[in-house]
Amino acid sequence: MRMTSIRQSWLNIPADSHFSLRNIPFGIISTASDPRRRPAVAIGDYALDLFEFSNSGGFRQSGFTNTAVFENSTLNAFAALGRAAHRMVRTYIQDIFAASGPYPDLLERNHPLRERALLPLASVQNHLPLEIGDYTDFFVGRNHAYNCGVIFRGPENALNPNYYHVPVGYHGRASSVVISGTPIKRPVGQILPDPTAVPKIPVLAPTQRLDYEVEFAAFIATGNNMGERINVNEAEEHIFGYVLMNDWSARDVQAWEYVPLGPFTAKNFGTSISAWVVLSDALEPFRTKPLARPAEAGDVLPYLQEGNEESVYDIKLQVVYQTAGGDKAVVSKGSTKYLLFSFAQMIAHHTVTGANLRPGDLIASGTISGEDSGSLGSLLEKSQAGKVHIAIGQSTRTFLQDGDTITITAAADDGSGAGLVGFGELNGTVLAPDY
Amino acid sequence: MRMTSIRQSWLNIPADSHFSLRNIPFGIISTASDPRRRPAVAIGDYALDLFEFSNSGGFRQSGFTNTAVFENSTLNAFAALGRAAHRMVRTYIQDIFAASGPYPDLLERNHPLRERALLPLASVQNHLPLEIGDYTDFFVGRNHAYNCGVIFRGPENALNPNYYHVPVGYHGRASSVVISGTPIKRPVGQILPDPTAVPKIPVLAPTQRLDYEVEFAAFIATGNNMGERINVNEAEEHIFGYVLMNDWSARDVQAWEYVPLGPFTAKNFGTSISAWVVLSDALEPFRTKPLARPAEAGDVLPYLQEGNEESVYDIKLQVVYQTAGGDKAVVSKGSTKYLLFSFAQMIAHHTVTGANLRPGDLIASGTISGEDSGSLGSLLEKSQAGKVHIAIGQSTRTFLQDGDTITITAAADDGSGAGLVGFGELNGTVLAPDY
Ligand SMILES: [Ca+2]
Ligand SMILES: [Ca+2]
Ligand SMILES: [Mg+2]
Ligand SMILES: [Mg+2]
Ligand code: NI
Repeated sequence: MRMTSIRQSWLNIPADSHFSLRNIPFGIISTASDPRRRPAVAIGDYALDLFEFSNSGGFRQSGFTNTAVFENSTLNAFAALGRAAHRMVRTYIQDIFAASGPYPDLLERNHPLRERALLPLASVQNHLPLEIGDYTDFFVGRNHAYNCGVIFRGPENALNPNYYHVPVGYHGRASSVVISGTPIKRPVGQILPDPTAVPKIPVLAPTQRLDYEVEFAAFIATGNNMGERINVNEAEEHIFGYVLMNDWSARDVQAWEYVPLGPFTAKNFGTSISAWVVLSDALEPFRTKPLARPAEAGDVLPYLQEGNEESVYDIKLQVVYQTAGGDKAVVSKGSTKYLLFSFAQMIAHHTVTGANLRPGDLIASGTISGEDSGSLGSLLEKSQAGKVHIAIGQSTRTFLQDGDTITITAAADDGSGAGLVGFGELNGTVLAPDY
Repeated sequence: MRMTSIRQSWLNIPADSHFSLRNIPFGIISTASDPRRRPAVAIGDYALDLFEFSNSGGFRQSGFTNTAVFENSTLNAFAALGRAAHRMVRTYIQDIFAASGPYPDLLERNHPLRERALLPLASVQNHLPLEIGDYTDFFVGRNHAYNCGVIFRGPENALNPNYYHVPVGYHGRASSVVISGTPIKRPVGQILPDPTAVPKIPVLAPTQRLDYEVEFAAFIATGNNMGERINVNEAEEHIFGYVLMNDWSARDVQAWEYVPLGPFTAKNFGTSISAWVVLSDALEPFRTKPLARPAEAGDVLPYLQEGNEESVYDIKLQVVYQTAGGDKAVVSKGSTKYLLFSFAQMIAHHTVTGANLRPGDLIASGTISGEDSGSLGSLLEKSQAGKVHIAIGQSTRTFLQDGDTITITAAADDGSGAGLVGFGELNGTVLAPDY
């Protein structure tokens, strides 16, 4: 699988494009002239409108017959067809765009269809790629879990006793998962102004500790029946693809509300995801090992033991912080590989008691931090819970201020010259509270 | 509102029916001869098939023109029309069934339509009444929270410092919410066999502490936009109606996994709800005050302060435990009134940071226990975490065994003679684990 022959495209794809010929991520678009939501793939600086392409007979030579899925306003039906279908369509689209490919008449030389179906990315509006039935957020970025534990409980008790055994996760809010570019209003919530005071009397106020969390997330393709478990070694077959996630979090609200049932209003006001779903197949060349387990942690239980040691992906993450005043800095450079458990393990655990997953369910890793201070995935860690001021050009920050914009990008490159496999840009701007 | 003139029906409605003329709950049914899922109301021992009734012109004199909602396989579109529409339809159906009512030709004297549309309840299959976008479980049954706190932390620290200020809640699993009658397979999960051992090494095993939780739950009719709050005094207008809930819980799994992000696999394997949604209007006569706040707790924050002191309903709850061997006992008699916060307060809090609710969202109270040992809503409380054996006829139990059936019923009666407003029966049987 690692031996990729380098194919070129007849389309001019910039070398630094996240959407190389070996990516072909799927999304949902609309345009000013056609507001219908419809499936598309991104390639170079363009989106190929799959509704238009399919209706114009684009798939007639593909062997793929379920083209009705491209008439939908979400990718759920396409995802539910399973990985063999995704592979067939992705490979075919690669053939369509390949230089000296097998189907030059279908698009390359078909200028009227190129005009209709190959749309500049700058002209398309993205929408949520799938309808999300349930959204689950895990907490398997061990470095983040450890850093937060040190801040709140000290290094001795940083990780809870269950941490190395249980891929810890919780159910999040599906309704407020939004697409990149959606502004996030600073939430107003219950906050305890002085945690040391007795009695503890909260106030209602705009959060003073608004944070981002850099996460990686998988969309489910095919689910399971309630009462059935998904085997860890079959779990990847249930994944459609991946997106970047920013799990906006109000740390002061979270601290007051989260005992004993976990975060609720501190996180359910908005969660942003990137627009283009990168298929599992496109990430195959970038497999690597997850975080090592300390010897004293022992093995995971058998239902979490994977055959493939290279169970995570090394996709480089970058976070750019731009202040309302226009100052700008790269505040983090990390990788999606810093996970203690893989997505296959998360899925096996998610279904261990019999919970049913459905096509379109979204499963996120939890915040991903690397090993050093330059690769942290949240301001909570970077500012040491507000104690350290972070330089953003001429400005400093501890937590997010109104008007600030966070932009997360991620791309994988194995140096093969075959181009990047990237996720584009996930951004969101903080709006002033409505209070 | 409390002065109800007692109307009789031309239909023979047994005096102990939960579905009196003043109830008219909505559900989704299918039949052996017509497997299409379609809306219906329950009345006496019958379901009125609203698809058939509407298609036969049943609503022509009603003033209700959105009858297309009765062609759907869920009640979401009907719910989304808002309370004025629900009221119009419920009142009209009451007129249809009223003795000496205004429309005797529509159904009472229309025997062919009665044959087609008025189906014996015993002949209909119920399905989930609404498609649930997000399911949220609160924890506002103060007696339950206190009882559990005493078991785990002792009476001094039974309730956490946030408890009287925050309507504590968490996001649950929407995919595994199932209709009454669905069997529940005993889950297999991560359990710590000896919580005192060092190091803590879990095993994978069928839960030994399978429990039920008696809850009351509201379906959302109309939602809010992300970033907007729902005012506590307008929140009831957003409710479609109510159902009973059994939140099956694996206590041993829960104890091991729930720190720090709350229950996950211990509760996401199945949650049962009753079939017929009782509209808010039908419950108006049964309003009462919620649990009193102790003086030292002070007031709730202004965003939770309600104009109406009678903010909860007094609906009598009953739990029947039937063992696999056929022993049977009433194990609890309670009421839905034992809540610290009302559903209006839960909704105001749910949206305080800007989370958007959608039509069909399900919001549950958390376990409801009364003041004494005869009104407890879970086996955890009743068995004192497994220490006390509960007599069920000739058998005893601490937690659920395979083959056991839990049946929750609830009905309100104000003694007016106008009949019961009830929820029918919510039952589920435990199946042996698949392990
Ligand atoms: Ca998170
Ligand atoms: Ca519960
Ligand atoms: Mg979030
Ligand atoms: Mg449950
Ligand atoms: Ni009244």
